[in-house]
Amino acid sequence: MKAFFENDRFAMKAGVEIMEIGEGYATARMLVGPEHLNAVGVCQGGALFTLADLAFAAASNTQTETTVSLASNITFLRAVSDGYVYAEARRMADHHRVPFYEVRITDERDEIVAVLTASGYRKHKPQAGNGY
Amino acid sequence: MKAFFENDRFAMKAGVEIMEIGEGYATARMLVGPEHLNAVGVCQGGALFTLADLAFAAASNTQTETTVSLASNITFLRAVSDGYVYAEARRMADHHRVPFYEVRITDERDEIVAVLTASGYRKHKPQAGNGY
Amino acid sequence: MKAFFENDRFAMKAGVEIMEIGEGYATARMLVGPEHLNAVGVCQGGALFTLADLAFAAASNTQTETTVSLASNITFLRAVSDGYVYAEARRMADHHRVPFYEVRITDERDEIVAVLTASGYRKHKPQAGNGY
Amino acid sequence: MKAFFENDRFAMKAGVEIMEIGEGYATARMLVGPEHLNAVGVCQGGALFTLADLAFAAASNTQTETTVSLASNITFLRAVSDGYVYAEARRMADHHRVPFYEVRITDERDEIVAVLTASGYRKHKPQAGNGY
Repeated sequence: MKAFFENDRFAMKAGVEIMEIGEGYATARMLVGPEHLNAVGVCQGGALFTLADLAFAAASNTQTETTVSLASNITFLRAVSDGYVYAEARRMADHHRVPFYEVRITDERDEIVAVLTASGYRKHKPQAGNGY
Repeated sequence: MKAFFENDRFAMKAGVEIMEIGEGYATARMLVGPEHLNAVGVCQGGALFTLADLAFAAASNTQTETTVSLASNITFLRAVSDGYVYAEARRMADHHRVPFYEVRITDERDEIVAVLTASGYRKHKPQAGNGY
Repeated sequence: MKAFFENDRFAMKAGVEIMEIGEGYATARMLVGPEHLNAVGVCQGGALFTLADLAFAAASNTQTETTVSLASNITFLRAVSDGYVYAEARRMADHHRVPFYEVRITDERDEIVAVLTASGYRKHKPQAGNGY
Repeated sequence: MKAFFENDRFAMKAGVEIMEIGEGYATARMLVGPEHLNAVGVCQGGALFTLADLAFAAASNTQTETTVSLASNITFLRAVSDGYVYAEARRMADHHRVPFYEVRITDERDEIVAVLTASGYRKHKPQAGNGY
């Protein structure tokens, strides 16, 4: 599965690395560098979103089902401008069609940087094609 | 102001271009290519988020004030895998500290691709340093 | 259809009135009185949510399909403590399973009080029983 | 403090009871009855929102500061039509102006019914008047 998500070109280019994938669970990280910064010198919200979204995808997709992100809510709690940020995605509810996940992003001191909650939409078909 | 936002390295690297900046209003676009695609072959949510976030930043920042994104809610309505996507950010409420914006992302056929709503937090200080 | 929603006991008890129901569209109103106020003397967020939710339900349900609210995001933009508040729900995207609506709540001076966005989940079955 | 929140007329009328208030933490409950049901016979989203909102208010307000709800995101995960529902509010981040809370609503079997995340806005003034 890890190899599968490494086909996510946008996330890979952003420097996101998947660390762990379990049942309804995944972790990822990203080393914040100059290329992630916005106009005021802190990590762009889109970079943090990309990290969280990949962790969500890794936690929610399996070999037989595709879960796409439907609605995501992200709250930015702390600015970061360097160092690793870590995302931990966890399934909180397992509705057959619309599972719900929470992803917490923390920094190297384990302070919360952002929290994303995502409602997914589960499709019972193979992960292939341009599927969503 | 346009030059200022072109310092957003993450958004620039993602291919986002600012088109127009007005009072509480901005538009931006991004040409979706292979580098934006995720593991199932459609534009990554983080790429769309980055586009929307830059449009929000351009609409909400002025020469004397910085508005940072506090909480953003994005709903993905249609998958795209190529062509331009356009973001139009518009201020919907002008609370002195916590303005509210809506950003609509559309495709080349003017179909809605995603909607982001964002609560900003306005700081009365110059846009410089690692300010947020 | 209007009679159907008047079976929403919680919304009726809160004083919500449906005004208009169209295709993917509905309006409702509520006269804010002492019974809607919270501990600091302004209209409780739950009362405004109830108003918005009924407008969403009226806009999104038809005689052959039930659409339930899946994820709702509400932003409170202006406190109100008396007078009418009006909700206007509008379908913004028509995904076959997961349509997306926006509801704007305004006061008597047409100022925006709150904005709710809601992803619904459409069930192809009659509106009856305890269906959701 | 408990007495203070019992001035929330809308929440009291909806049957919400505060159970516990701590530092950045509170619990509340509501016994779902016929008066909470919507047109399809399940507990109205607005009733669950009201329960969650009061738990958030109880967790986030202190004798010297008022925190109002700014943006709330609620995801409905399981329909309930009777029995107690419990809300547990917990502060997840403590930004000086914009703290972030999560409220989980569970049913009598400890299944998750809904999750609300809320960004508050903290005002350094006494909790009185029509203050928000």
